[in-house]
Amino acid sequence: MLNPLITLITDFGTQDGYVGAMKGYLLQACPTVRLVDISHDIEPQNIYQAAWCLTRSAPHFPPETIHIIVVDPSVGSSRPPLLLRALNQWFVAPDNGIFTELVNRYPPETIYQLHRKTAWWQAHRSFDGLALFAPAAACLANGVTLDKLGIKTHAITELLKSRPQRVAHQLLGKIILFDRFGNALTNISAEDLASLPAGTRQVSCQEQLFPLLNHYAEGENTQLLALINSDGMLELSVYCQSAQQQCHLHTGDSVTVQY
Amino acid sequence: MLNPLITLITDFGTQDGYVGAMKGYLLQACPTVRLVDISHDIEPQNIYQAAWCLTRSAPHFPPETIHIIVVDPSVGSSRPPLLLRALNQWFVAPDNGIFTELVNRYPPETIYQLHRKTAWWQAHRSFDGLALFAPAAACLANGVTLDKLGIKTHAITELLKSRPQRVAHQLLGKIILFDRFGNALTNISAEDLASLPAGTRQVSCQEQLFPLLNHYAEGENTQLLALINSDGMLELSVYCQSAQQQCHLHTGDSVTVQY
Amino acid sequence: MLNPLITLITDFGTQDGYVGAMKGYLLQACPTVRLVDISHDIEPQNIYQAAWCLTRSAPHFPPETIHIIVVDPSVGSSRPPLLLRALNQWFVAPDNGIFTELVNRYPPETIYQLHRKTAWWQAHRSFDGLALFAPAAACLANGVTLDKLGIKTHAITELLKSRPQRVAHQLLGKIILFDRFGNALTNISAEDLASLPAGTRQVSCQEQLFPLLNHYAEGENTQLLALINSDGMLELSVYCQSAQQQCHLHTGDSVTVQY
Repeated sequence: MLNPLITLITDFGTQDGYVGAMKGYLLQACPTVRLVDISHDIEPQNIYQAAWCLTRSAPHFPPETIHIIVVDPSVGSSRPPLLLRALNQWFVAPDNGIFTELVNRYPPETIYQLHRKTAWWQAHRSFDGLALFAPAAACLANGVTLDKLGIKTHAITELLKSRPQRVAHQLLGKIILFDRFGNALTNISAEDLASLPAGTRQVSCQEQLFPLLNHYAEGENTQLLALINSDGMLELSVYCQSAQQQCHLHTGDSVTVQY
Repeated sequence: MLNPLITLITDFGTQDGYVGAMKGYLLQACPTVRLVDISHDIEPQNIYQAAWCLTRSAPHFPPETIHIIVVDPSVGSSRPPLLLRALNQWFVAPDNGIFTELVNRYPPETIYQLHRKTAWWQAHRSFDGLALFAPAAACLANGVTLDKLGIKTHAITELLKSRPQRVAHQLLGKIILFDRFGNALTNISAEDLASLPAGTRQVSCQEQLFPLLNHYAEGENTQLLALINSDGMLELSVYCQSAQQQCHLHTGDSVTVQY
Repeated sequence: MLNPLITLITDFGTQDGYVGAMKGYLLQACPTVRLVDISHDIEPQNIYQAAWCLTRSAPHFPPETIHIIVVDPSVGSSRPPLLLRALNQWFVAPDNGIFTELVNRYPPETIYQLHRKTAWWQAHRSFDGLALFAPAAACLANGVTLDKLGIKTHAITELLKSRPQRVAHQLLGKIILFDRFGNALTNISAEDLASLPAGTRQVSCQEQLFPLLNHYAEGENTQLLALINSDGMLELSVYCQSAQQQCHLHTGDSVTVQY
């Protein structure tokens, strides 16, 4: 592979030097690599945020891109490290549910469980990113065959993801994540809305009404608004402000679509 | 253009994956591109900060560099997207005043208004960075001719920027922005100061005196100091501390130069 | 040098455009350079954090990598700028103690004091990163000989670093830094612990006991834990939480190892 692309998603921040160590290792092990920072600002151990960050980014990358994702509350434990192929690209990450959104949309072609008991791993045992995931990515980029890296598996952990429920004339969902602007991402999809009987829909959360609009800019009049975002998910916003702060919303809050 | 340079300035943060999506798109559309992160940490919708970030960075880049700047309170609205040539480089951004400082210093050679009603734009309508600005930059990098991308224009929005006023023996300006270290950038330029009659100058803000020094390090004795920064603008600082916090300064505070 | 690697560690943040200016300069001065961001999120003027960030990252980079580190409370003062060779790599930074951890582990082969009175420096005098360190790195990358860049020196500032003390049956150290996850880095090394007489060790801080474990994941039962991290230093943690917040720890707090 000429000038392989390796991307990085971590919750390490950059100031402690662990991301620097991974970058140095990758440039040393694969001198022609092109490194791409997707994010190092994932909230510590927020797997949902990492899962969405990955799912929004990956589909736009070229075939054969290698993505390393290291966000793991249980670092160094017995959680098996995975290598997954989907979208004609490669994904290396701990098996902790981080692939949930990705595989729902883009079914994986193959999944491998990575070997971990190398000498290198013993030397860097408190730091999986350097001990395990960067070496696996470098091996892939350098053309090492898959059977040297791990063994095929089929099991893969998925995040528990309660689906929205239909009760009487209501679809009941919830807030799963906020973005940087304080917009609230819900677990209600465009398909969920489309499957409801025709008619008006009223979206509310915390006793506040969020008019369902087509475009963010239309919120100039209503201030509060709901829309289908570019992920195809229902999102709650306040025009030019943070819905999280203005409406006092929290992760897990119920979101109701009356129909 | 061989190995074109494309830089990114956004207020997206990186954790939501929108920057990752733009990077993936650019690498896919223009495989030889070299991506350069200037900043994704612009405060949400702070056009002044983005304008200065751009104005400080751009003059140092090589000719033909393509800069994408996406910081826009009114995303998705009818605000026309611009393509501008200055400094022998290209700039792609919404027409919301973001170019104010740049064009004051480096007059633009040409300005185009980008076409926006493509199919791609319809599919990603809540996300201009991916729908509009990244494709325009990739087209430029790939040598698409300008008349395919948009139409010539001359109008360009400028930020309202009150100039400092001379009243009696005072020059009255204000604080427009703080940097990461809490230094206060004012709207008073070196030229404004040079145009005053010869003699001593006393700089004050919030009833505190900021001795005008040549060099930051000279502030070791005075603690508070004012100096002409590398932008050629008057800046208020506290030695090794945050002027914003130590002196309780705010954006918009009056700054007085007594002469 | 083909496609030279230049890395950046600063406390500038990215939003003010100073990092962008340095990147533009480097790409202009050395068109084949590969730029690598290690961190721009070093806490303002926290030399300890920068020193550890560098020490963790640098050993993994390829030979001839050029590292620029600009974190300096006394910017623009008479502090001499240094060029140092260690690990078969180059390091450019102010002489303010930033190399302390690095040179303790990887003795420098040569040290140069950089010339500073160039015309470029006069024009950008309030911004050493652009005036001094980026040009020095670009010259190095372009093969300028060392005697043009500066003069040999031997002196180098080291951070005052109190070593842990043995008193009765106690080893007394302290907390020197927190990482992004709130883990507390101490000044007690694996060697310090190994040099103690055989037997049990009890690690405590702020009247709280941190059981000494081999692996972070073992902390699931104990919650609080101490371990030797991948730097070979004693670290205090709380399982899946911030030790800094949960245990109310501060930089400088005493850490006791009872043996």
